[in-house]
Amino acid sequence: MDLPKKVEIIEVGPRDGLQNEADFIPTEKKIQLINALNKTGIKRMEATSFVHPVYVPQMKDAKEVLEGIEQDPSIQYMALIPNEKGYERAIKNGVRALSLVVGASDSFNIKNVKMTREESINKFDTVVEKAKDNGIFLRYNIATSFWCPYEGKVDSDLVMDMVTRIDRSGVDEIVICDTIGRANPAQVYGLFSRIFDELQPQAMIAAHFHDTYGLAQANVVAALQTGVTRFDTSIGGLGGCPFAPGAAGNVATEDVVFMLHEMGIDTGIDLSSLLSCVEIVKPLTSRELTGHFHKINVNQPQM
Amino acid sequence: MDLPKKVEIIEVGPRDGLQNEADFIPTEKKIQLINALNKTGIKRMEATSFVHPVYVPQMKDAKEVLEGIEQDPSIQYMALIPNEKGYERAIKNGVRALSLVVGASDSFNIKNVKMTREESINKFDTVVEKAKDNGIFLRYNIATSFWCPYEGKVDSDLVMDMVTRIDRSGVDEIVICDTIGRANPAQVYGLFSRIFDELQPQAMIAAHFHDTYGLAQANVVAALQTGVTRFDTSIGGLGGCPFAPGAAGNVATEDVVFMLHEMGIDTGIDLSSLLSCVEIVKPLTSRELTGHFHKINVNQPQM
Repeated sequence: MDLPKKVEIIEVGPRDGLQNEADFIPTEKKIQLINALNKTGIKRMEATSFVHPVYVPQMKDAKEVLEGIEQDPSIQYMALIPNEKGYERAIKNGVRALSLVVGASDSFNIKNVKMTREESINKFDTVVEKAKDNGIFLRYNIATSFWCPYEGKVDSDLVMDMVTRIDRSGVDEIVICDTIGRANPAQVYGLFSRIFDELQPQAMIAAHFHDTYGLAQANVVAALQTGVTRFDTSIGGLGGCPFAPGAAGNVATEDVVFMLHEMGIDTGIDLSSLLSCVEIVKPLTSRELTGHFHKINVNQPQM
Repeated sequence: MDLPKKVEIIEVGPRDGLQNEADFIPTEKKIQLINALNKTGIKRMEATSFVHPVYVPQMKDAKEVLEGIEQDPSIQYMALIPNEKGYERAIKNGVRALSLVVGASDSFNIKNVKMTREESINKFDTVVEKAKDNGIFLRYNIATSFWCPYEGKVDSDLVMDMVTRIDRSGVDEIVICDTIGRANPAQVYGLFSRIFDELQPQAMIAAHFHDTYGLAQANVVAALQTGVTRFDTSIGGLGGCPFAPGAAGNVATEDVVFMLHEMGIDTGIDLSSLLSCVEIVKPLTSRELTGHFHKINVNQPQM
């Protein structure tokens, strides 16, 4: 099995994970979580988002969160932005790494941001240019890259065209997202192989899986086999998607880190510190966490 | 990704799954479950076991279960036996396919049956000879082939020696079991590759995974890539192991069948019939099922 020696974990729990919680999570709890994540060895994190609070009220304290956390200069803190206005707010708050989302499926994108895929990409061009001019790190998420909750299976040619188009614009990173957690390992292997073999993109390529059908870890391994070395994960397996009904949480950070270490792949992350963070998120969510460690019998003999 | 076109599912829920339930499940419920499984397209099943009721009281109704079910002549119903006495009881009850278990780890085997691995294998030789003389199908499970709850990681050389020894004895099928659900995909890929490449066994080779750390599906895919085409699964993800504390259920039949179908691999099984069986097992267990389908939001749009 051909595998990389080292993998980069991008923690998306504080943003993608928490944004789905119906009840507002106190700012100090978010700060406590990020400060604990700071100590795990994680080097990249989606910390919050600058989306209008009418749409995502959970993230209305973006400014306070960023001001409250102990910013470690060796860690990249990213904020999701929906548009140019979000860009300006994020920059004003000192953020140097931003994240955009567009859906590969038009139905999904329209439900999400009331624009077609094409309209979103065109609008984002201005943001991409600004970011490049100002030396801002930009990651570009392609949501529903495999399946859409409204349209079904997504044509891989469509995603290939989007990756080509977005890569040409000069972003730093493109994230291929299985937003509803329905991709299968063969599909994942197929799409990432095509991206690397046919496009050889300039941007870094990351993978983002949810665990709705319990296939996320199998998809991580399939992606690893194509050469993907960057994975979005969410502490505890927090998450879901407000516009993707039925989607379970992101693949859990601790599950992925455990698996990678067991496979002899370095992440630079300390598993026991991650498990302390799981204890912090457990009381924050009313959803069933997709992670496995909080369910494992503590009386299990030590190995 | 090099994958087989067809995979055989061996349903182990009625035996390996149910035997861990603390409360006795009424015989008619077991019969109802097997009769429902009969209609899914599954062609092989562990139906019960002839173990002394003092050790596994849940299976004390083996005879009544076998007499009560509608035996479909196209389906193989297997019974687990612990020794020669179990062999005689099973045969007397008309069983034509039997299953043996030995632990690769001595500590596990001693806890399980109060004998060393070597003692178990030697004792089973008589059973293997009898089975061959009488045209009985024999499957031989190697428990804790990857990890032992007491000894930690199991040396693959040891498992290779066991497979060699057992294969020479002339059994029909050897099952490589991750009894506590801790194997990782690289380890799985490594061991099955060695078995096929170095040993080219005469016996059919099957894989048996539990989902404790959420790695079972990734392990199925890793095994598929080495050429394994036979997988033990348990409806709903029932299971665990009374002598392997902390072990979660077997990988769920419906999860594996779903994944294989999504990957374009034929199983001959109807997923919707399986989901009806999940509804039957849900009230039978007090444990958390490892399967994912019973958790998926039913309001999810149809795809």
